[in-house]
Amino acid sequence: MKSAVILLSGGLDSSTLLHYVRTRLNCRRLHALTIHYGQKHERETTCAVTQARAAGVEAHQQVDLAFFGEMMATASALTDPLMPVPALSTLKPDQLDQPPTYVPNRNMLFLALAAAYAEARGITDVFYGAQAHDRYGYWDCTPKFLEHMNAVLGLNRRHAIVLHAPFMLMGKSEILKIGLELGVNYAETWSCYRGKDQPCGVCPSCVERRTAFAALHIADPAEGRGL
Amino acid sequence: MKSAVILLSGGLDSSTLLHYVRTRLNCRRLHALTIHYGQKHERETTCAVTQARAAGVEAHQQVDLAFFGEMMATASALTDPLMPVPALSTLKPDQLDQPPTYVPNRNMLFLALAAAYAEARGITDVFYGAQAHDRYGYWDCTPKFLEHMNAVLGLNRRHAIVLHAPFMLMGKSEILKIGLELGVNYAETWSCYRGKDQPCGVCPSCVERRTAFAALHIADPAEGRGL
Repeated sequence: MKSAVILLSGGLDSSTLLHYVRTRLNCRRLHALTIHYGQKHERETTCAVTQARAAGVEAHQQVDLAFFGEMMATASALTDPLMPVPALSTLKPDQLDQPPTYVPNRNMLFLALAAAYAEARGITDVFYGAQAHDRYGYWDCTPKFLEHMNAVLGLNRRHAIVLHAPFMLMGKSEILKIGLELGVNYAETWSCYRGKDQPCGVCPSCVERRTAFAALHIADPAEGRGL
Repeated sequence: MKSAVILLSGGLDSSTLLHYVRTRLNCRRLHALTIHYGQKHERETTCAVTQARAAGVEAHQQVDLAFFGEMMATASALTDPLMPVPALSTLKPDQLDQPPTYVPNRNMLFLALAAAYAEARGITDVFYGAQAHDRYGYWDCTPKFLEHMNAVLGLNRRHAIVLHAPFMLMGKSEILKIGLELGVNYAETWSCYRGKDQPCGVCPSCVERRTAFAALHIADPAEGRGL
């Protein structure tokens, strides 16, 4: 694979993915796509810039989709200023399947955009950093979702895009392990959904990240750093 | 069906669809979604405003996706200032399957956005105005495309969106016939891809429209009007 488009948020998973595709898949012409959609953790996109530079991407396309966050109105804790990002420990059992941090149909939208970008440039392969979640789940991070999305895109007779999510069956510690082997600078990745000066440590994303670093018995270089 | 989201460009098909959903399907809470993506025939969106008003929609959401047209670069005659919109008669046989007026993955992108909009508002049904083309075709206007898109969206356990394209197997004259019965004001719809003061009469969209009006032996009220 010579060229690929990668959805790069600047979080732990997609940053690892970027370096994984470059080094493990030996793909040297990388196009990173970063989307500003009014997420509270907008600061992740600063890390995306750093990671794209570190990976020597051919292009880093940043897209302003702020209207999308506004359009989502009260439908997601990631975009609604009045809905707090919950601590993972406060989620009720019936919230674990698509918790309040779910953004309606965001992944299809972003992948559709990435596929359009790829097709316009004659690129076939698109990557996104979906991971397995141990304690909650999103319908648009599942193997079925990927399979069905590829079934749609495969109908394009002239230029069928193929979506890949190589971390889809891995938990965060497994992804982190790969990234450490690849030398990813995790001080320059951002995960906390609350997006304040310091990681909150209790939102679903923080808990997963902390658990992953703890499982590997190492300190998170982004903690206490006030990125 | 009480509520629905309708992708409304302001062209003949989607304008007819809007009134069809309101009157034939008796759906009274309509949300129209109009997308400005840098199309040369941007003037169609002025007609979208008129039609949305005429149908008494509950909301008309207009979205600025100008970056998308720029991102498509030289990939579509609808968005590239340097690529002329071809006359239908000049298309070579191998261009009839996805002619230069095809915009890479646009329909998936717009439908993904419409589905997100619907989900955030608790609406289930989304409509778009895909039609059958007699002399050329787009992969993302086919029953297979619709079926596979619905297979993806059906995976959403909490809020499965259903996409509908009731005109998908109809040619333009059939759609026009329905719209005339519904009293659609076709003076306030725009089809010409070239988007100049007057319809060019030769681009694929104009040829289809003219053929449809001719088949019904009536004059097109938008012709010579200089909308």
